[in-house]
Amino acid sequence: MQFTINRNLFIENLNNAMRAISSRATIPILSGIKLVLTNDNLLLTGSDTDISIEIKIPVSDDLQVISTGSIVLPARFFSEIIKKLPGKDFSFEVKESFQTRIISENSEFTINGLDANNYPRLPEISDESSFTISGKTFREIINETQFAVATQESRLVLTGVHFTFNPNMIKAVATDSHRLSERTISLDNGPQKETDLIIPGKSLQELSRIIGETDPQVRICPGDNQVLFEIGNILFYSRLLEGSYPDTDRLLPKDSSTSVEFELSELSSALDRASLVTHAGRNNVVKLNLDVQNQTVKLSGESAEIGNVEEDVSFKNLEGENLEISFNPDYLRDALRASITDAVVMKFTQPLRPFTVTPNRDDVNFVQLITPVRTF
Amino acid sequence: MQFTINRNLFIENLNNAMRAISSRATIPILSGIKLVLTNDNLLLTGSDTDISIEIKIPVSDDLQVISTGSIVLPARFFSEIIKKLPGKDFSFEVKESFQTRIISENSEFTINGLDANNYPRLPEISDESSFTISGKTFREIINETQFAVATQESRLVLTGVHFTFNPNMIKAVATDSHRLSERTISLDNGPQKETDLIIPGKSLQELSRIIGETDPQVRICPGDNQVLFEIGNILFYSRLLEGSYPDTDRLLPKDSSTSVEFELSELSSALDRASLVTHAGRNNVVKLNLDVQNQTVKLSGESAEIGNVEEDVSFKNLEGENLEISFNPDYLRDALRASITDAVVMKFTQPLRPFTVTPNRDDVNFVQLITPVRTF
Repeated sequence: MQFTINRNLFIENLNNAMRAISSRATIPILSGIKLVLTNDNLLLTGSDTDISIEIKIPVSDDLQVISTGSIVLPARFFSEIIKKLPGKDFSFEVKESFQTRIISENSEFTINGLDANNYPRLPEISDESSFTISGKTFREIINETQFAVATQESRLVLTGVHFTFNPNMIKAVATDSHRLSERTISLDNGPQKETDLIIPGKSLQELSRIIGETDPQVRICPGDNQVLFEIGNILFYSRLLEGSYPDTDRLLPKDSSTSVEFELSELSSALDRASLVTHAGRNNVVKLNLDVQNQTVKLSGESAEIGNVEEDVSFKNLEGENLEISFNPDYLRDALRASITDAVVMKFTQPLRPFTVTPNRDDVNFVQLITPVRTF
Repeated sequence: MQFTINRNLFIENLNNAMRAISSRATIPILSGIKLVLTNDNLLLTGSDTDISIEIKIPVSDDLQVISTGSIVLPARFFSEIIKKLPGKDFSFEVKESFQTRIISENSEFTINGLDANNYPRLPEISDESSFTISGKTFREIINETQFAVATQESRLVLTGVHFTFNPNMIKAVATDSHRLSERTISLDNGPQKETDLIIPGKSLQELSRIIGETDPQVRICPGDNQVLFEIGNILFYSRLLEGSYPDTDRLLPKDSSTSVEFELSELSSALDRASLVTHAGRNNVVKLNLDVQNQTVKLSGESAEIGNVEEDVSFKNLEGENLEISFNPDYLRDALRASITDAVVMKFTQPLRPFTVTPNRDDVNFVQLITPVRTF
């Protein structure tokens, strides 16, 4: 196996493949990156078994093949070397016993490699039920829900986001059973058949980074227990979570007895300050007091060690019954960070029933639910 | 104690006082910041006993005194609050039992404070043998030597930089017994009497940050076991290290048998790459091969696990006898980072004797010494 390649072209692709490689690889060979060279392409593969990324660099003036072959190299170390090489290009040659020589200008490295035949095979996924959606839409819906997945694995299915793809819409729900985020976006040409997928939150985080700020087409190929996302020259494989996702629609309250609207920036700042105090104490709980008669909204928090805080929060349209409700400020902070409008409406029923945070616009189908905390 | 103050003015000064406060304070009250308000000034004090910083904010339109007094508040928490307050100003009032109320616009905090009478007193240092030097010069000489102090406390005196101030020059030496950095800079008006100080490296690091990129005057007041630096409205106290500093001049070799000149950037890059390999192995050692006959310079390194590297380094004026020498690349990297010229001269005697790194200009009095490693 021998080739020369433009260093920047290689680094850009290597960085993406590295996203799948864990610093705590369970199988030693998975701390490596696999390189397979054919007469047409150089394939880079990284995997942590949950996520696998395969990237195809086609042969061009910037990639010249001298002889085909394959090798696995220690990923982090290899990547650091390539990034620090002096030249615009480098040459790469596998010698005997998987020793790999890398030369760029006056710098010459020899790295101990591993036999690529021992690298785990990627799943084969047929593309018969595949469909294509906008990367921008997909990234948006990931960022609006993924943060709400459970991080503890006691109910594995909750560590994923539940997606439902239809011909004309995509719906995503995530909940860790303390808070929930549900978002629906209309689609131009979703799959003909309704498709249900529970995708691990961690996979979605990496996928969102790979989609990036541009708007590439994302082809989604659902398989039996894996799903494949194709984005340009990148193939992104993720494990799917099995089991049935809870019916979350029945959790969303149909009506409310108190409602109020906040500017996002105003409420976020007050919440940030209140959290300074509550994070210092043992109970990370703030209290929100909505006084409809006097038209005041107060947010307060205390910690025995440090002291206390009280914020007069400005608001619009406070209606319904007076209410005092306590909750974990971090859940509301996450909900506000995911919000895509400049103002949100909060709707409450009773002090111990979940409340909703929604956009102040009816045309955005996005609801977040937060469970309060009993403080007495 | 009650005042109102401009928030940005306060934050700027608070940040400097906080530099002395350790997150692992040994005495609980030292995790706090002391505020003392007179009719003339607000004094902020932070300390970790090794370093103390006292800052004076004079009364002005931006600082209005309502009543004098003093308090100690939990530093990190207090600072986070002040930084997140909504308004341009805030008001500050100590109520009963050291409870302190802070109000800015619609935000109101109450913080549990401590009695300022329990805060340790700062040393009293007479200014009779004080002198003033340029902050730029002082910062430069700190940055050129401080990195070489010992980090282990087996010989306490080596954890400091040894300064000698004369009427017309300042000399600083630091060594951890593996490498040494010695710098001399001429002064316009140093102290009339030669002054010797061993100042802890950690103190100098903070002092260098406080001096900053501008060129303030620094007044130095040496005391018995403390030294005071006065920079604008900042008083910076540091413990001095007692004991006699080793005579380092005798360590510097008088002549050499091999010498070579390198561009700083060229040698640094080669060294960075070689370190990638040697950092991965158990022995962090690179080998430098100077071949005078063939006029080649090779830098190499290896690690059994990872592989090896060989760099052809470009150079100027390679003269004397052939030499192969092994050393820790981190020491040379530090020496190159501290260098202030674009090229350096390295001079060697024997493979197991220390070698020097000096500027390629005779008018800069700066010598760094590195002890090689035996590899056979």
